[in-house]
Amino acid sequence: MGKGRLEAFSDGVLAIIITIMVLELKVPHGEDVETLRPLIPVFLSYLLSFVYIGIYWNNHHHMLHAVRAVTGPMLWANLHLLFWLSLIPFATGWMGENHFAPATEALYGVVLLMAAIAYYILQQLIIASQGPDSILKRAVGTDWKGKLSPLVYLSAIPLAYWSRWISLGLYVFIALIWLVPDRRIEHALAAEKG
Amino acid sequence: MGKGRLEAFSDGVLAIIITIMVLELKVPHGEDVETLRPLIPVFLSYLLSFVYIGIYWNNHHHMLHAVRAVTGPMLWANLHLLFWLSLIPFATGWMGENHFAPATEALYGVVLLMAAIAYYILQQLIIASQGPDSILKRAVGTDWKGKLSPLVYLSAIPLAYWSRWISLGLYVFIALIWLVPDRRIEHALAAEKG
Amino acid sequence: MGKGRLEAFSDGVLAIIITIMVLELKVPHGEDVETLRPLIPVFLSYLLSFVYIGIYWNNHHHMLHAVRAVTGPMLWANLHLLFWLSLIPFATGWMGENHFAPATEALYGVVLLMAAIAYYILQQLIIASQGPDSILKRAVGTDWKGKLSPLVYLSAIPLAYWSRWISLGLYVFIALIWLVPDRRIEHALAAEKG
Amino acid sequence: MGKGRLEAFSDGVLAIIITIMVLELKVPHGEDVETLRPLIPVFLSYLLSFVYIGIYWNNHHHMLHAVRAVTGPMLWANLHLLFWLSLIPFATGWMGENHFAPATEALYGVVLLMAAIAYYILQQLIIASQGPDSILKRAVGTDWKGKLSPLVYLSAIPLAYWSRWISLGLYVFIALIWLVPDRRIEHALAAEKG
Repeated sequence: MGKGRLEAFSDGVLAIIITIMVLELKVPHGEDVETLRPLIPVFLSYLLSFVYIGIYWNNHHHMLHAVRAVTGPMLWANLHLLFWLSLIPFATGWMGENHFAPATEALYGVVLLMAAIAYYILQQLIIASQGPDSILKRAVGTDWKGKLSPLVYLSAIPLAYWSRWISLGLYVFIALIWLVPDRRIEHALAAEKG
Repeated sequence: MGKGRLEAFSDGVLAIIITIMVLELKVPHGEDVETLRPLIPVFLSYLLSFVYIGIYWNNHHHMLHAVRAVTGPMLWANLHLLFWLSLIPFATGWMGENHFAPATEALYGVVLLMAAIAYYILQQLIIASQGPDSILKRAVGTDWKGKLSPLVYLSAIPLAYWSRWISLGLYVFIALIWLVPDRRIEHALAAEKG
Repeated sequence: MGKGRLEAFSDGVLAIIITIMVLELKVPHGEDVETLRPLIPVFLSYLLSFVYIGIYWNNHHHMLHAVRAVTGPMLWANLHLLFWLSLIPFATGWMGENHFAPATEALYGVVLLMAAIAYYILQQLIIASQGPDSILKRAVGTDWKGKLSPLVYLSAIPLAYWSRWISLGLYVFIALIWLVPDRRIEHALAAEKG
Repeated sequence: MGKGRLEAFSDGVLAIIITIMVLELKVPHGEDVETLRPLIPVFLSYLLSFVYIGIYWNNHHHMLHAVRAVTGPMLWANLHLLFWLSLIPFATGWMGENHFAPATEALYGVVLLMAAIAYYILQQLIIASQGPDSILKRAVGTDWKGKLSPLVYLSAIPLAYWSRWISLGLYVFIALIWLVPDRRIEHALAAEKG
């Protein structure tokens, strides 16, 4: 089975997730600039989640690049990932509207954690399907970002009840370390051909 | 006529259906974890429908794999299927918000039944177009899942008025038997080539 | 310039239009079957518009099949068509919620009329670009459906103020004559090759 | 890395942005034509933004035509552009519902300005990646439209507080100068081959 339709469906779902998030930014009823002020936390949480979905799209794109044949379990692991990502608009809206209140930040962390686990499962399935010479395995290498991220989410969840700024800072920090484009897979593929 | 645009359009509609369902999970106004509690049935009904749409996408994907030429009737049979699937977000939202009340579960069953019938019509049109040596016919075989599902939906509709748990259990049961990836079509295609 | 991205963008917009229409079918607050009754006209208007968008997708698909090179004016004629089609969910929702009241049916007719004109402009641009031997021109032939439809919409607009049933009947009638798959383009293409 | 998935994702996001804007055109509760009157400014702002998104889609389409390999920075520059474009439905809705009040027009200008800057960054990244013989650089030429537009937005922002009509007129003027299809890139590509 080809991977074209898996990519197309994933792209569609990710494009819709990233765009419906903006619907939480509800048009205010006044016409003054002042009426925008309560929307600032909603806007900031939208920006953070936009970056997270962008990172997932980017990494998903690279990961599938290394796939040759799509198996049944991969299809379901991919849907599992999309399920958790589809909850990001909800978690983002709740966090933004409540000015990063502890419980809302904790939920945001839970959704990010589950998405990270789902991504890891998909990655392991692809590596397993490629056998001992897996390109993806070499590309991922020590995968320190992939291992660090869930640990940070896991600590940010209880920390939200102590200080909302530390917890938010951790989510921003993880987004920043991923923003650097991940060239590992490209390098491994280039090494393969070279 | 090629099947690329039919797949692209179907993927688009399915991706939107699966994603707008999450809009029924409305952001609560409080900032405590307690405010999430009333959303639990909405979340569970979302999860069930996400799995159902995933199954349809998966099976649709496999079924079209076996199609060579798309005919006019197939285009309309496909739109007919998408029509019933497009009602799933509505039925899901009504069921979740009313804690799986009998009438809401019955409507959910009606929508699933109509979608199953629409899928069957599309499948028969494809088989008919392929003549006596139809790959899809061999792939589908006895089609026990396809025959069992509408019968179970049909019994779940009245049973919802007797016990909402039995009816819900039947919908979950059917989702589980389909979750096992359907390798019949792949096997038939492989046998064809082998 | 290739036509792939024009098709992909049009498919995306049409898939979203057809799916967001269902959002007008708002989840009722009661849990009885009775609470669905006021939704019946909304459901029927959704069904009618679903068929209309399906017809446009189908015919658009066939028409672009005959296109070789996409020109700048075609891109804008296509966006012009998508603009009027994007107003169908609004016109549908207004008509359904007000039980096919005269003004709402008249607006529905105006939107259908403008979409039909936009489709005609796009068709003429494609024919003009293909020169005297235009495949599309031969395929369209007398184009009696394309000529009849705007005339019927034009008469349905004032007739809505006289009887809402006659006007609605005319919209259903036009949908039915288009539902028959349009094989003219396929035949012309086949004749070309044969 | 190929550009197909970048185009597909961008098309998806642009198709959704252009279509969810119409959701701001909320179905009125009365059944008379009079109830549509308050929607006129919302409709006009929708029309303006539809044209702007259409222009961006069109130019984006042409610009990517000239790209051979997509780099990591291009992916993020593209997401940056999509981020600002995703705010257009919000700015449009606010402007339309408040009858083009000064602050709402100023925000609309800010969003257009940021999108224009993001587009310029993406363009420069592509030109830089193509080296001294960049096709896109020759195609863009003096880029007077690309240089004039942000200057006009920048002046329209404060002018909105002086006269809402002048500011709106400037946004319409810029849309009109871009509506003329941009053949520079096509010409440069044709010259390359010729």
